[in-house]
Amino acid sequence: MSVRILRDGTAADGLAADDRGLAYGDGLFETLLVHEGRALWWDAHWRRLQKGAERLRIPVPKEEHLVDEVSRLVYATSRAVLKLVLTRGAGGRGYAPPARVAPTIVLSLHEAPDATPAAGLDLRWCDVRLATQPALAGIKHLNRLEQVLARLEWNDPAIDEGLMLDERDRVISATAGNVFALIGGRWLTPRVSECGVAGVMREWLLAHVDGASEAELDRDAIETAEAVFVCNSVRGPQPVRRIDRREWGDFAAIRTLAHRLLAREPAFAFSFAPWLGDNRTET
Amino acid sequence: MSVRILRDGTAADGLAADDRGLAYGDGLFETLLVHEGRALWWDAHWRRLQKGAERLRIPVPKEEHLVDEVSRLVYATSRAVLKLVLTRGAGGRGYAPPARVAPTIVLSLHEAPDATPAAGLDLRWCDVRLATQPALAGIKHLNRLEQVLARLEWNDPAIDEGLMLDERDRVISATAGNVFALIGGRWLTPRVSECGVAGVMREWLLAHVDGASEAELDRDAIETAEAVFVCNSVRGPQPVRRIDRREWGDFAAIRTLAHRLLAREPAFAFSFAPWLGDNRTET
Repeated sequence: MSVRILRDGTAADGLAADDRGLAYGDGLFETLLVHEGRALWWDAHWRRLQKGAERLRIPVPKEEHLVDEVSRLVYATSRAVLKLVLTRGAGGRGYAPPARVAPTIVLSLHEAPDATPAAGLDLRWCDVRLATQPALAGIKHLNRLEQVLARLEWNDPAIDEGLMLDERDRVISATAGNVFALIGGRWLTPRVSECGVAGVMREWLLAHVDGASEAELDRDAIETAEAVFVCNSVRGPQPVRRIDRREWGDFAAIRTLAHRLLAREPAFAFSFAPWLGDNRTET
Repeated sequence: MSVRILRDGTAADGLAADDRGLAYGDGLFETLLVHEGRALWWDAHWRRLQKGAERLRIPVPKEEHLVDEVSRLVYATSRAVLKLVLTRGAGGRGYAPPARVAPTIVLSLHEAPDATPAAGLDLRWCDVRLATQPALAGIKHLNRLEQVLARLEWNDPAIDEGLMLDERDRVISATAGNVFALIGGRWLTPRVSECGVAGVMREWLLAHVDGASEAELDRDAIETAEAVFVCNSVRGPQPVRRIDRREWGDFAAIRTLAHRLLAREPAFAFSFAPWLGDNRTET
């Protein structure tokens, strides 16, 4: 794992023991796909990081400076995942931040995930609910115990992901991605204004897929949908084969959407290859 | 700041950049008052840490081993605050923990807070609500952005603390402590089964103060109470003088309770001195 740590913009050997990222989860993160020396969709990730930092009132470093640091880390990497963590830095007495905040940045490179299997993903419904918290909804902050607890619910390697509901039985997302369902010929995805994360891939799909929109979806709506996929900015859309006993056999509509995405960003071809095949006639 | 970091029970130079405490707030903490070389109420803190670790399924280190480490850090310290952080350690791919979890412990010594002012504390009502999450309620986990956001709501140094409500307008706690209100001659404190932390001081008071019990309290119940205090295990009970426009002048009932606590643990005398005076006749 290559790591670069910056405290207040300056390279540091390690993390302070009283970094507020550790103490309170007082920070944000982004996870980017690195392909042929580039961190994909930097602009969208940077915008979301800024939005989150504004909400949490954490000062953001200069973008140019960060872009330099990122480039230096990824320029010779053919395929990897880049994680960027921004925290409010060290110290402060209790929850009140120190008078002068010196943010911490942790950049790290990790192995890229495997391609999505040809058969698609097998999902389960998680028991842990996402709490309603409009003050934190949408942003990608470091308070992720709900997702950790949800992921601890299974260790069957045949299960790829879990879907999470809020306390009012509304479907919100997967543990590590958003979810879309094809209903009446339109791609719908849950709102993330009360909980959940506004994923970068989700935003792209909402903006670029005809008729895609937000909607309130319950478990039944997902299970009776014509097709379902989960997505994040590292893997792109991943077709769902099964949720509990409900199975889907036809990924045609997801292939159409994947081709649209590939036209914009060919780097996702690796993730899609097993299930997308070479069938471009569907586009 | 004296710091001692243990990874899987062995001393380490620093934190791993992919420690799950930083990545997801995947851990717990305890804050103890150190007095004359002792970490006060170790047993109660250890019990709560165990309970939290069981809930999050984080393996706990051997108590003896940890007690040794704590003693070594605090034995020559006359007054300080000891912070103990336990995380699920480094790594794992995404939210799933690694196959073998090697927990991280961070022990750090910090300056003890000042004594509580003679006049008591001035409080405000916070705007940020505590989200309902039974899976995390009661334990002292590292996902504390709600408290951070609440504490960011004011920077008037005349305001000492903020009280937080849940989304159903029930009072839950202060940002960094529990709250008790004297109503009809009985000390009542909010339940923490849906959100909030079961403070070690709160538990002691519930067990040792006659008639003290849990109750559902709204803002009006607090504002019309005969007396109010906030408490945590570092400062003990702290009398509230004011919440917004509501003022209390008489701390007699809180003094009675403080004397009971001092009989058990004289180390709190320092915190109480300014407002408790020498008036032991009230006991």
